Amino acid sequence: MSTDASHMRADARQNRDRILEVAQRLFAERGLDVPMAAIARRAGVGIATLYRRFPTREALVTEAFAEQIGHCLSVLDDALADPDPWHGFCTAIETVCAMLSGDRGLSAAFIGAYPHAVDVTGAQERALREFAAVIERAKRAGELRADFAIEDVAMVIMANNGITSDSPETALAASRRLVAYLINSFRAGHADPSRPLPPPAPLQLRDAFDQAGT
Amino acid sequence: MSTDASHMRADARQNRDRILEVAQRLFAERGLDVPMAAIARRAGVGIATLYRRFPTREALVTEAFAEQIGHCLSVLDDALADPDPWHGFCTAIETVCAMLSGDRGLSAAFIGAYPHAVDVTGAQERALREFAAVIERAKRAGELRADFAIEDVAMVIMANNGITSDSPETALAASRRLVAYLINSFRAGHADPSRPLPPPAPLQLRDAFDQAGT
Repeated sequence: MSTDASHMRADARQNRDRILEVAQRLFAERGLDVPMAAIARRAGVGIATLYRRFPTREALVTEAFAEQIGHCLSVLDDALADPDPWHGFCTAIETVCAMLSGDRGLSAAFIGAYPHAVDVTGAQERALREFAAVIERAKRAGELRADFAIEDVAMVIMANNGITSDSPETALAASRRLVAYLINSFRAGHADPSRPLPPPAPLQLRDAFDQAGT
Repeated sequence: MSTDASHMRADARQNRDRILEVAQRLFAERGLDVPMAAIARRAGVGIATLYRRFPTREALVTEAFAEQIGHCLSVLDDALADPDPWHGFCTAIETVCAMLSGDRGLSAAFIGAYPHAVDVTGAQERALREFAAVIERAKRAGELRADFAIEDVAMVIMANNGITSDSPETALAASRRLVAYLINSFRAGHADPSRPLPPPAPLQLRDAFDQAGT
């Protein structure tokens, strides 16, 4: 009977892993509004099993992205620890944009399209705080232009989110080129004095995903 | 009786104008997939009247945007006629992005999300041809960086399309700042030699609107 119990536990774990894997893939392809029934069907489990493991969509979203969001945060930790503040800043922007490229579900989860997924909200606040520190460091080093604003991070992520393609490779390549153009402009001493920047706008990151139906 | 007939014609014209006005506004707010019934209801006409004036959605889209698309094209004509090729290039990018900002319907129509709307396809091809000439002129003048690619126009428009907000003013302000950052990078002589650009990606503009459900 203890063998049966551990067999059941192994089965439950396997189901759970399969659900998370399928959810992550479908969220990436189609956004967070994929029907729960489609996830259950693709994972080969009944809808009741899905809801027993994940009572709400928010719980499933939080779990599905916990790992990737943790990776995003560790990218920011690395940027703060980088002995070269400008290199740290560039790598943070590049890595986060590359991760978000073509992954609509992760983008939506990360920016808090599901405000009730508490873990994601916490991660988002921490990410903004860390981005502010990365920016401050690169400015103090005289490498990042002084008029770069925290809202520009939202601007970059939203612009990056606009770059999509049927081919994930094409989307990623175009995202990299966009980010390279922008970083080139963010560098101190590269501004064209004849064309000053208009002021930053109070962007709300989550607006970016309204039209994804999430 | 001739008075009756001209009265009917005036009525028909008024209906037609009201339908076009409503369609333009709803397309802008919600994209091109607004139900025909919603357009009829908001315009205060029956669905049969709507279909009598515009037998297909494509016909309605084409008519609704003919004027704005004509304006986009005249912006490119002006850019080509500008005695200062760099000023012409910048104004073309800035004006087109400002027009497209916050107008999902126009964006979708312009990039040909409805390939059967023949007039729009023709306008799109003409726009690309003219953009290529504007780019070539600014490069020959030594003002636009030599590695700027025609695909970068699609990249800019897609990135601009990613900038959205509940407030049209915020979206426009953020779009202007994004475009200013990018133009700063497009200027010849402003490249950071330590961070060369990755190659351009073969972007298809219409991919940008797949997720808008159009």
